[in-house]
Amino acid sequence: MSAHDEPVYGLLTPEATLHRYADQLATRFTGVFTRETIDRYVFESYTALARTAKVTTHLPVLTERFASERLTALAQAKGAIQDDTCEILFVCVHNAGRSQMAAALMAHHGGDLVHVRSAGSQPTASIDDAVVEAMAEVGIDLGGEFPKPLTDDVVRAADVVVTMGCGDACPVYPGKRYLDWQVRDPAGLSAGEVRAIRGDIEARVRTLLAELHPAVAPQ
Amino acid sequence: MSAHDEPVYGLLTPEATLHRYADQLATRFTGVFTRETIDRYVFESYTALARTAKVTTHLPVLTERFASERLTALAQAKGAIQDDTCEILFVCVHNAGRSQMAAALMAHHGGDLVHVRSAGSQPTASIDDAVVEAMAEVGIDLGGEFPKPLTDDVVRAADVVVTMGCGDACPVYPGKRYLDWQVRDPAGLSAGEVRAIRGDIEARVRTLLAELHPAVAPQ
Repeated sequence: MSAHDEPVYGLLTPEATLHRYADQLATRFTGVFTRETIDRYVFESYTALARTAKVTTHLPVLTERFASERLTALAQAKGAIQDDTCEILFVCVHNAGRSQMAAALMAHHGGDLVHVRSAGSQPTASIDDAVVEAMAEVGIDLGGEFPKPLTDDVVRAADVVVTMGCGDACPVYPGKRYLDWQVRDPAGLSAGEVRAIRGDIEARVRTLLAELHPAVAPQ
Repeated sequence: MSAHDEPVYGLLTPEATLHRYADQLATRFTGVFTRETIDRYVFESYTALARTAKVTTHLPVLTERFASERLTALAQAKGAIQDDTCEILFVCVHNAGRSQMAAALMAHHGGDLVHVRSAGSQPTASIDDAVVEAMAEVGIDLGGEFPKPLTDDVVRAADVVVTMGCGDACPVYPGKRYLDWQVRDPAGLSAGEVRAIRGDIEARVRTLLAELHPAVAPQ
């Protein structure tokens, strides 16, 4: 050890926990994915979240959810899971404001008619507090959500992809509907401004929902 | 299409090209990885680079390199490729300055004694111009390098992991040597300051190399 070096005493990666999650996912996806794919999804999902996490306490649990959601998306994309529900993916830069609000509002208004996912091109460590508060005001709890990097699997599973401010970061595949919404970024804005953005996104969500399911008229 | 929406006319993801790369990698890694793993690596590597790319012209070629390097690392980690060369991974935040300089200087001085990789916890679109210039001054061409997100596979393949300013972003596995170097971030600094950082990193690299290979004394 040279005088320049500082040894690292960080927490060991929770390998045993992650292998246990992989065991569970391997059971759930028997006949759909190889064990190699599932192991890679679990460990790469962990590393992808760890890259931007500030608090690592919940990282294993979030990893299990992220890997599970990604594998489910991939199973849908390859036709191993049949689901006629309209899959909508919202993508913004940080997955900490706009895409989280849009996904939550679409899930709220769309109910069983839609399934939503969200992601960010450059995810941050946590969802903006002002965004969590603005959503709580309308009775929507974002407490269980977390910023996730955009992955190929969730794009493949989507019927509709809505991008907000993330440029060309999202893969474009034929046969999907791509929309780009010009919505203001709530990062650092006041509560009143975030409420206005919430209203803007809610109007767009209702309009899109009515287009996808004409029986659901926007109010 | 509602008045709120703007359709997306981005370039289609170069699926045919990526599938061709996957074919080539499948041949190279016959008996090592399933085709599913190789497909996932190629397409997720593309999406991971596309998230932060500003110019997408070279994205397919960089994707092939990134996926190939990741699969090679994973093959080493699982013992499918035997290689006694010391594997050193340098990680910083953007993979645009410190970790690129350290990797290039280690490769330059270590020659066949080491194999280097680098990555970032939050990679940027391109390597800092001042860093490219400072390295060119000492005869090292960074022209072919590009920022890459940190992945689990390259950590698994490493014997030594050197982190610089990226906190706890890197998975910690037993049996590896982890070092944390306190090196100034060259982003936005003057040419003179970047040269000083280059000197700092070069001294650390020579010291580490001498420790790893005592026959190579630092000058």
